[in-house]
Amino acid sequence: MKFEVTILGSSSATPIYNRNPTSQVLNINERLYLVDCGEGTQQQMLRFDVRASRIDHIFISHLHGDHYLGLVGLLSSLHLNGRKKTLKLFGPPQLKEIIDLQFKYSETTLQYEIEFIETDPNKARTIVSNEDVTIETIPLDHRIPCTGFLFREKKRLRKLLKDKLERIGVPVEYFTALKKGADYTNPEGKVYKNDTLTTDSDAPKAYAYCSDTLYSDQYFDQINNVDLLYHEATFLNNMLDRAKETHHTTALQAGEIALKVNAKKLLIGHFSARYKSLDELLEEAQSVFPETGLAIEGKTFTV
Amino acid sequence: MKFEVTILGSSSATPIYNRNPTSQVLNINERLYLVDCGEGTQQQMLRFDVRASRIDHIFISHLHGDHYLGLVGLLSSLHLNGRKKTLKLFGPPQLKEIIDLQFKYSETTLQYEIEFIETDPNKARTIVSNEDVTIETIPLDHRIPCTGFLFREKKRLRKLLKDKLERIGVPVEYFTALKKGADYTNPEGKVYKNDTLTTDSDAPKAYAYCSDTLYSDQYFDQINNVDLLYHEATFLNNMLDRAKETHHTTALQAGEIALKVNAKKLLIGHFSARYKSLDELLEEAQSVFPETGLAIEGKTFTV
Repeated sequence: MKFEVTILGSSSATPIYNRNPTSQVLNINERLYLVDCGEGTQQQMLRFDVRASRIDHIFISHLHGDHYLGLVGLLSSLHLNGRKKTLKLFGPPQLKEIIDLQFKYSETTLQYEIEFIETDPNKARTIVSNEDVTIETIPLDHRIPCTGFLFREKKRLRKLLKDKLERIGVPVEYFTALKKGADYTNPEGKVYKNDTLTTDSDAPKAYAYCSDTLYSDQYFDQINNVDLLYHEATFLNNMLDRAKETHHTTALQAGEIALKVNAKKLLIGHFSARYKSLDELLEEAQSVFPETGLAIEGKTFTV
Repeated sequence: MKFEVTILGSSSATPIYNRNPTSQVLNINERLYLVDCGEGTQQQMLRFDVRASRIDHIFISHLHGDHYLGLVGLLSSLHLNGRKKTLKLFGPPQLKEIIDLQFKYSETTLQYEIEFIETDPNKARTIVSNEDVTIETIPLDHRIPCTGFLFREKKRLRKLLKDKLERIGVPVEYFTALKKGADYTNPEGKVYKNDTLTTDSDAPKAYAYCSDTLYSDQYFDQINNVDLLYHEATFLNNMLDRAKETHHTTALQAGEIALKVNAKKLLIGHFSARYKSLDELLEEAQSVFPETGLAIEGKTFTV
């Protein structure tokens, strides 16, 4: 099952050095989930061949502009490009007021429905549960109400022994049932037990998106053992005071968090405009957590 | 005196083919004036080396997203980059409510003041008059209230006869006074009449920005004889019905308007996403008004 994240924006506060404000798109079993939507996100999708029409879920962490100012433009473009499918939008309650006001004055009546689901910055809650994943909010500690998002795969499907299926001549239309654990009975009535045709599935994966937040252990339990942790790392640790003051995290702290929660890999992002080069931020996080990468525009990471 | 316009966005409705939603920046005697501010305008400024901090006036024609969704991000970046100078913002009255709501929920208190000046879509009004220019609103006929903007230079300065000034040895600090018409008295008391040291100034230039609008003669008188006319040309004329229905103009009509109002040059923009190539739009406008150019991102035109 595909479970990957593509970075559309990695900048904090202002766009700079070809870095765009925060946005990411997850592909989980060919469904796209958009996480945050800074100004220019729709342009980034065009640039990196992400088909916006395939997105059915959008998650907004909080109402600082660098995390949502591209949303009204995107919603409007979906409308103009003929979308009819309902879109689920998750975010702080005030987001709806902001969107409604802008569509009121532009006299826009969307051709599709937006199902708006309020997030609660004080409580972890499961906000999506479909056949592929559950998605929970992660209460974070920022200057204004803010939640991260935790994506957990449900049980993965069993893996087909393709060679064997071919030898026996199992028709392709049975494959989905086999992946889900069914036995196969051939036209002559012979039964093949599932475990002779498939092997155990991989363990389900988890991805945590934590932006923006003060270093705070309130969410560590929730993200324990994730396979991939995206964590903001706005500053180097020599700016720890500034990080605390603005309720952000340093690269060193992001590394420490990844270590503490036993993440398999760490991605850092939300870089301050003061860093033209990101090398030092990466090195600082890697000094405590070697399996760290940079959340750079256009890059795709497998969870 | 410098009087030029740089195109930051030429797309209507949605960004596409590397075309951004509408925005332009005028440089009039080294002051920058921003006209409309579609999503991604601040990124375009970075791309084309336009220093946002030099902008003291922003004009928003109307509240369709492709003309203003980059504004809150830009205002926020100016704040984060340390702006202290007052910024004058001109637009429909509801624009202020949209901005205020977003800064309220992001808990942003700008470090600089925004002086908000409401435009009236029904009446041409002079909204700026400084030593360089007067700027008037142009009432347009769109689906929602919309104004264009007319920039008229004040009298241009007289032109110095540099060779003669050098021969006589006129110190550079007298040049500004000479340009404004003063005589020169040398240290020995000899008076040189101004018209022996300068020649007549060029006629003042005018630039009209007309977007978005139905073809309608209500504004033709006001923009008569402009040196450069920017006019939206969303569609080819084979889509005239669609243009009327959506209150837009075709390329052919834009050419006809330029001809009718006796413009010296025409720039067309606000291109529909249906046109990947703009050749046909240009040819259609040029078929009635040969001095037509395309308002393409990054291009600068002298008025």
